[in-house]
Amino acid sequence: MSEFDLVIRNGRIATAADITECDLAITDGRIVAMGENIGPGRQEIDARGLWVLPGGVDAHCHLDQPMPEGLRMADDFHSGTRSAACGGTTTVMPFAAQEKGQSLKAAVADYHSRAEGKAFVDYAFHLIVTDPTETVLKEELPELIRQGCTSFKIYMTYDDLKLNDGQILDVLALARAEGAMAMIHAENADCIGWLTQRLLDAGHTAPKYHAASRPMLVEREATHRAIALSELVDVPILVVHVSGAEAVEQIRWARSKGISIYAETCPQYLFLTAEDLGLDGYQGAKCVCSPPPRDQSNQQVIWDGLDDGLFTIFSSDHAPFRYEDPQGKKPNGEEVAFPYIPNGIPGLETRLPLLFSEGVKTGRISLNKFVELTATNPAKLYGLYPRKGTIAVGADADIAIWDPERKVTIRNEMLHHDVDYTPYEGRTVTGWPVLTLSRGETVWCDGEVLGRAGHGRFLPCGKPDMAKPKVRG
Amino acid sequence: MSEFDLVIRNGRIATAADITECDLAITDGRIVAMGENIGPGRQEIDARGLWVLPGGVDAHCHLDQPMPEGLRMADDFHSGTRSAACGGTTTVMPFAAQEKGQSLKAAVADYHSRAEGKAFVDYAFHLIVTDPTETVLKEELPELIRQGCTSFKIYMTYDDLKLNDGQILDVLALARAEGAMAMIHAENADCIGWLTQRLLDAGHTAPKYHAASRPMLVEREATHRAIALSELVDVPILVVHVSGAEAVEQIRWARSKGISIYAETCPQYLFLTAEDLGLDGYQGAKCVCSPPPRDQSNQQVIWDGLDDGLFTIFSSDHAPFRYEDPQGKKPNGEEVAFPYIPNGIPGLETRLPLLFSEGVKTGRISLNKFVELTATNPAKLYGLYPRKGTIAVGADADIAIWDPERKVTIRNEMLHHDVDYTPYEGRTVTGWPVLTLSRGETVWCDGEVLGRAGHGRFLPCGKPDMAKPKVRG
Amino acid sequence: MSEFDLVIRNGRIATAADITECDLAITDGRIVAMGENIGPGRQEIDARGLWVLPGGVDAHCHLDQPMPEGLRMADDFHSGTRSAACGGTTTVMPFAAQEKGQSLKAAVADYHSRAEGKAFVDYAFHLIVTDPTETVLKEELPELIRQGCTSFKIYMTYDDLKLNDGQILDVLALARAEGAMAMIHAENADCIGWLTQRLLDAGHTAPKYHAASRPMLVEREATHRAIALSELVDVPILVVHVSGAEAVEQIRWARSKGISIYAETCPQYLFLTAEDLGLDGYQGAKCVCSPPPRDQSNQQVIWDGLDDGLFTIFSSDHAPFRYEDPQGKKPNGEEVAFPYIPNGIPGLETRLPLLFSEGVKTGRISLNKFVELTATNPAKLYGLYPRKGTIAVGADADIAIWDPERKVTIRNEMLHHDVDYTPYEGRTVTGWPVLTLSRGETVWCDGEVLGRAGHGRFLPCGKPDMAKPKVRG
Amino acid sequence: MSEFDLVIRNGRIATAADITECDLAITDGRIVAMGENIGPGRQEIDARGLWVLPGGVDAHCHLDQPMPEGLRMADDFHSGTRSAACGGTTTVMPFAAQEKGQSLKAAVADYHSRAEGKAFVDYAFHLIVTDPTETVLKEELPELIRQGCTSFKIYMTYDDLKLNDGQILDVLALARAEGAMAMIHAENADCIGWLTQRLLDAGHTAPKYHAASRPMLVEREATHRAIALSELVDVPILVVHVSGAEAVEQIRWARSKGISIYAETCPQYLFLTAEDLGLDGYQGAKCVCSPPPRDQSNQQVIWDGLDDGLFTIFSSDHAPFRYEDPQGKKPNGEEVAFPYIPNGIPGLETRLPLLFSEGVKTGRISLNKFVELTATNPAKLYGLYPRKGTIAVGADADIAIWDPERKVTIRNEMLHHDVDYTPYEGRTVTGWPVLTLSRGETVWCDGEVLGRAGHGRFLPCGKPDMAKPKVRG
Repeated sequence: MSEFDLVIRNGRIATAADITECDLAITDGRIVAMGENIGPGRQEIDARGLWVLPGGVDAHCHLDQPMPEGLRMADDFHSGTRSAACGGTTTVMPFAAQEKGQSLKAAVADYHSRAEGKAFVDYAFHLIVTDPTETVLKEELPELIRQGCTSFKIYMTYDDLKLNDGQILDVLALARAEGAMAMIHAENADCIGWLTQRLLDAGHTAPKYHAASRPMLVEREATHRAIALSELVDVPILVVHVSGAEAVEQIRWARSKGISIYAETCPQYLFLTAEDLGLDGYQGAKCVCSPPPRDQSNQQVIWDGLDDGLFTIFSSDHAPFRYEDPQGKKPNGEEVAFPYIPNGIPGLETRLPLLFSEGVKTGRISLNKFVELTATNPAKLYGLYPRKGTIAVGADADIAIWDPERKVTIRNEMLHHDVDYTPYEGRTVTGWPVLTLSRGETVWCDGEVLGRAGHGRFLPCGKPDMAKPKVRG
Repeated sequence: MSEFDLVIRNGRIATAADITECDLAITDGRIVAMGENIGPGRQEIDARGLWVLPGGVDAHCHLDQPMPEGLRMADDFHSGTRSAACGGTTTVMPFAAQEKGQSLKAAVADYHSRAEGKAFVDYAFHLIVTDPTETVLKEELPELIRQGCTSFKIYMTYDDLKLNDGQILDVLALARAEGAMAMIHAENADCIGWLTQRLLDAGHTAPKYHAASRPMLVEREATHRAIALSELVDVPILVVHVSGAEAVEQIRWARSKGISIYAETCPQYLFLTAEDLGLDGYQGAKCVCSPPPRDQSNQQVIWDGLDDGLFTIFSSDHAPFRYEDPQGKKPNGEEVAFPYIPNGIPGLETRLPLLFSEGVKTGRISLNKFVELTATNPAKLYGLYPRKGTIAVGADADIAIWDPERKVTIRNEMLHHDVDYTPYEGRTVTGWPVLTLSRGETVWCDGEVLGRAGHGRFLPCGKPDMAKPKVRG
Repeated sequence: MSEFDLVIRNGRIATAADITECDLAITDGRIVAMGENIGPGRQEIDARGLWVLPGGVDAHCHLDQPMPEGLRMADDFHSGTRSAACGGTTTVMPFAAQEKGQSLKAAVADYHSRAEGKAFVDYAFHLIVTDPTETVLKEELPELIRQGCTSFKIYMTYDDLKLNDGQILDVLALARAEGAMAMIHAENADCIGWLTQRLLDAGHTAPKYHAASRPMLVEREATHRAIALSELVDVPILVVHVSGAEAVEQIRWARSKGISIYAETCPQYLFLTAEDLGLDGYQGAKCVCSPPPRDQSNQQVIWDGLDDGLFTIFSSDHAPFRYEDPQGKKPNGEEVAFPYIPNGIPGLETRLPLLFSEGVKTGRISLNKFVELTATNPAKLYGLYPRKGTIAVGADADIAIWDPERKVTIRNEMLHHDVDYTPYEGRTVTGWPVLTLSRGETVWCDGEVLGRAGHGRFLPCGKPDMAKPKVRG
Repeated sequence: MSEFDLVIRNGRIATAADITECDLAITDGRIVAMGENIGPGRQEIDARGLWVLPGGVDAHCHLDQPMPEGLRMADDFHSGTRSAACGGTTTVMPFAAQEKGQSLKAAVADYHSRAEGKAFVDYAFHLIVTDPTETVLKEELPELIRQGCTSFKIYMTYDDLKLNDGQILDVLALARAEGAMAMIHAENADCIGWLTQRLLDAGHTAPKYHAASRPMLVEREATHRAIALSELVDVPILVVHVSGAEAVEQIRWARSKGISIYAETCPQYLFLTAEDLGLDGYQGAKCVCSPPPRDQSNQQVIWDGLDDGLFTIFSSDHAPFRYEDPQGKKPNGEEVAFPYIPNGIPGLETRLPLLFSEGVKTGRISLNKFVELTATNPAKLYGLYPRKGTIAVGADADIAIWDPERKVTIRNEMLHHDVDYTPYEGRTVTGWPVLTLSRGETVWCDGEVLGRAGHGRFLPCGKPDMAKPKVRG
């Protein structure tokens, strides 16, 4: 037998189901063997005491997305994928967003050009459908799906993005016909608008009123409605960034009726609360995202849902805006009223370490569940599996090697995004990826970025296995 | 590199998380490598077109269990494990049952002697605790747990087996202290007794009245009570053989409150209904088991629960009694009133093919879910993992190779148990294991039993990871 | 003591709480005494063997409501109130409907002129708000409320009527500020439109597809949404014409959270099913109403809800269109596709006898509950109490005397509306009002209409006691 | 017309449905007329500004009940009914309790002799069945029911009282056959015993551990079980003294399934919390009752249930033991460990004023609801209606006249029981009965006891209308 390109020895290898202590061999960027004492690699890594996990798949992040005039996302494919890799993530799935009145295909073409030559790790595209015209539904979407964009996000809120219920039904029917996966941002736009106006009328402009303008019930209502629309069309949906108990209750209810609803949550709903929006002065703007973080009892409900299978995936919803930036959290250099603060927080690099430390190390979730939520399930859900999302013979050698005992105090200056803050500043975690491989190439090692922009390639997605109606007795 | 004992090439290997097409090598009864074109085996199997799955772990079956006078189980460790192997199962977990007033240790010792030298595949023991005296709780159970009997079953019904709520709390507290797993048979004994008496008083003695005497609500009530007891002690439990919607509703409710309840179901709740107990003449006695099969809408609820994570494991509850047998379904050679019909149906050999055909092949559940429910989860739940329950480097080479397209019409004469009937007579399934390996040795191949009694060994169980209180925020 | 105008002797008098056998005296149109052997009336009625009940308050009916071009309601205040009186109802509450873009005050003024001089029994107005402009919210509604129109209906469906969620919040906030009662027609407009288009595209135009275009889930979704909007504003609402289990489930859920939701149902959800829309030829058009009737199991859920307090009121939703009429169910004389069939069925006269027969006489609900649902609660809910809705000293002498044993086979020719059919043709009921008094004057007696148009007066409503936020601990 | 015995003029008369301002006439102890300016009475009361309510029916209280050796109830029929009358209650329903192994008929006979000649107001008997032998079920109960004891209480806890599930089914089947009403004390005995032993083992003996030994889940479990037993037999039950959210949730669930479950709650679940058991020293013993009071959020759930129809009746569960008494809360003069403290608190006299003040005056419940919960529903539920429980022509003149504005600070010295404390000492309420009539005779007036022992008579109960299976569609 000829030599392997790389052999990782003695690590503790975890998949979504198994934990195995053995050697692992890589050739031509793919995993080609696992076994005891497998034979030699041109390069070898001794992973004794370390955990060898599939690189993360971050299936919900925003990079270099075209913004309304005056705003700019802080991360493009260069800084975004670099940051991802340094946090153990080897696949990212940002969004190619249609502008109302514009072509979706054109948005995808533009997004390809934004990504081209910049990425450190592989990437796929979700679509954002904001204008489901006949052309979009009959021509563009089917063609884009054939080209590997097999999932799309639907917004129930934000004036420039939201669809009405009839449009959502049209898009879900298309998803059903084509076997695509629909992701839904579930918040009731009218309620938010109405509360926002009341708050502004009362002079309540501080960042913390962002949370007051989007109470749990506006998310619960929209979640129930999204479930009803899904049920009507008889096609699964994924409810993204579920924030707390009332939305979880609706999803559990749907499942108990045999309705196929998938759900995603994010670090901000485990590690932040609405109180973080009330930080001194304007600092709360750093934690403004939608839905807003809730409270401790809601965090517990999210933890329970991660452990017991309610949640299918765990994503960052990385939406990067710099704090001290006239194109970021302080538009035109000003501390604006809460409705004008760009929504979103950075999280690509911290997603995995936070969940690893507070979930796996504390015993709240198993190591297998960690892998399932952060890598295997997103890969499966979006048609990237088995190429991505696991450690198995034949899969891409996208691997993160973790030191499970390393204590790290998170500081923004150690992160590799282009945002000037992290909401988790000062928090200490246990466990951090010490080496990241993308298709067998080292991108991150011992605190150093070794990858190169342009290594990362576009991944056409297959049809998600999960986006199909349920088989009945 | 030296030769492997056995190489299986070109199969489609499935675990609870992954599906990989590669070669697999076995040496000394263990899986030692997986990879592309791995190097030669003294013996080689070409598995092209076949599916290579972990051998099943049947975590709920009854073999050669001491019975009340006049009754006899049809299968002992010889015929039982032979039948299991021929249906793709490589680990069985029958019950060492304490008799009231007797020592539990003595029961285990006796059970070891019943198993000794007879088994074709490996086996572990659950305990049945019927008399939790101070000695049992303080001495016997801790010692037996140390010796590898780390799970025990508690009955809420059957006069000779049942514990009262206070005794159950004592046993659960012991489970919590020792990290053992408690399985609960949840039916309300008093309700059953009361209904039975009324039915007999009305002259209703036919087998079908067995179902009438144990309506869904008696299972629901006991399930709710078991959940409350589990919650009080703060220790997970497994509710065994859940039969339908009302019990499922209680378990979903418990989970939504953050209470850790595991659940098991069995083939009879997917493939039989109460109408099967009403077959002509006395034939319904063949399907008398507890809880009884329900109806089609309940079957759908069970299918939904298998797919969406409600159920952790899928077992046979094989409880073998011959139909034409004075020690079986016709005690003293008579067609007795329903309360005197021995409870139980055979199912060790048909468990996997039925679920494979109607679950995996129809698309109701994924192949990964099949593996998870029938092998990986039972192995994990009862501390046999990673030795059993998966295909991974280092695991025992307990493997079933399936022909996913083979059509088989089930006939009792083709089965390998010692029961004279199967409730599934005449049912055609698609997919059957064509070869079974136990620690690398072929037990079943191309329709022939090749294993030998005595190959199978007792497996001491480790502490189940799952039997621990939930970590809270 | 001077003589009374009228004394009713020996009847069985029922209120929402009590059943009393005694005499009852009326003077000047009001009840002035109840007692044993009270002294003489200029006129006396011997009600031995009869039941003396408060005249019904039908709080949901449509009379002479301006329609889109080409359509016409079959009943005006003349025929409508006549029909009501003959069925034991002595107060009706039809709707003064704002046209989009028009003044609500003007609509009320117009409606007063339509009612003037025509009514046999007293009437009050609900409003229908279709265009909640600033003028309507700030000026017209407060003024109309002061003038006694203290309740208004909000539609979530029908293009010419529906409000969006933001508008609903505005109207609910007004209801909260002014202590008015908001009634909500809860169906999801977009879902209905989407399904309708699909059905028409598939050539499904028959009346029965009306039910297919409005499945239970579109009502459930809107009910959940209405609850959320009510919760957000913290003001009670009444969900009108609840049709079945899924909507009931949402309302029960809301109550279990302490949210104050009132609910109404109608005869069509107890006595019709979707199959009635599938009658031969075009006959099903006679039963086209929204939400559509469901099925038997949903009927049972409605019965349960009437009995156990889920429903606060029981109304007819009388919406009269003639079947053989180019301005009715056959627009322009044609059998049109289902979306063009005018919605609504007649029911003012049959509402009480149907519920009396199938509810009270069968024992499904008590006689007190009958009175509560059909008279007392609507009077209280809409601020007409204690003048209307009960039999008590001081109340208007609006009384229906029932023969509880009279068997009547319903035929349209015996009814007193101007509609040419009844959906209950041929159904036999037990119990019918034999005499109806409106403010002491006999309107209906022994099968003869004795009242006169113009006797009935407009009733300004007071503020509903119930439309207030809940007091918390 | 001849003179009436007594006329009450100008009061505000409330029933469970209505509020009427008129005069009310009494002759021969019965209400004989209500009207405007009725006239004259030999005696007249001007009730201007006062509220004239039906005297309360306290359907759950314990008086002179035989106790285990060494204990004694502080109130007999003399002091108990005196206290009741002074608090506006005119009917009491204490319990004739069977002793295990003894005759139920004998217990009733004994209880009659305890009551004879002592009562200030009328009384009926519930039975307590502790030993449902064949004789009791087949002979004694049917005979006692014929004699007017048509309701009985079943205990699921307390060693000397509790029935097992089979016995409960027997008793419920008897209730169904005879149309009697079964009341159930729902707490899981085994759980309480188990927790109690653990607490004692840990040295936790203070009164507050009484609450720790009976957490909400032991009540929830038993409530679910009681519901299941009721459902099995298909007969309504009343769950007595429901204390909080988890039990309420079960009852709501049952109702949503169409199962007829009635529920009662008591002042201690609105006005006390578990913290009252933790008062300094041994003082907490004063609030030891079962189930124990919970916390504020549970109080809110009880308030919601009173308002929305979940609860049918509101009773005191008066169970009087003196604090400084060797036969009371300090057995043998000692401060005993919590399991040995006699269970129960006094409340006959404060039941109505507390609910009136905190319920009606604050707006949490309507005046009609107050009457319904405290008088009309208990009378109906237990077959005393229409003689008791309302103000209507023909009913007994059992009336309480309230001054709705009177502010009273509760002090034990102003109460008329024979207990040496009240748990509500020092609490100020608004509203108090200023005059109580029992069958037309004044028992309590302006702070003076005017009634006489022996006026009160035994009331044979009719069959409760409510204790019948539900009619189905």
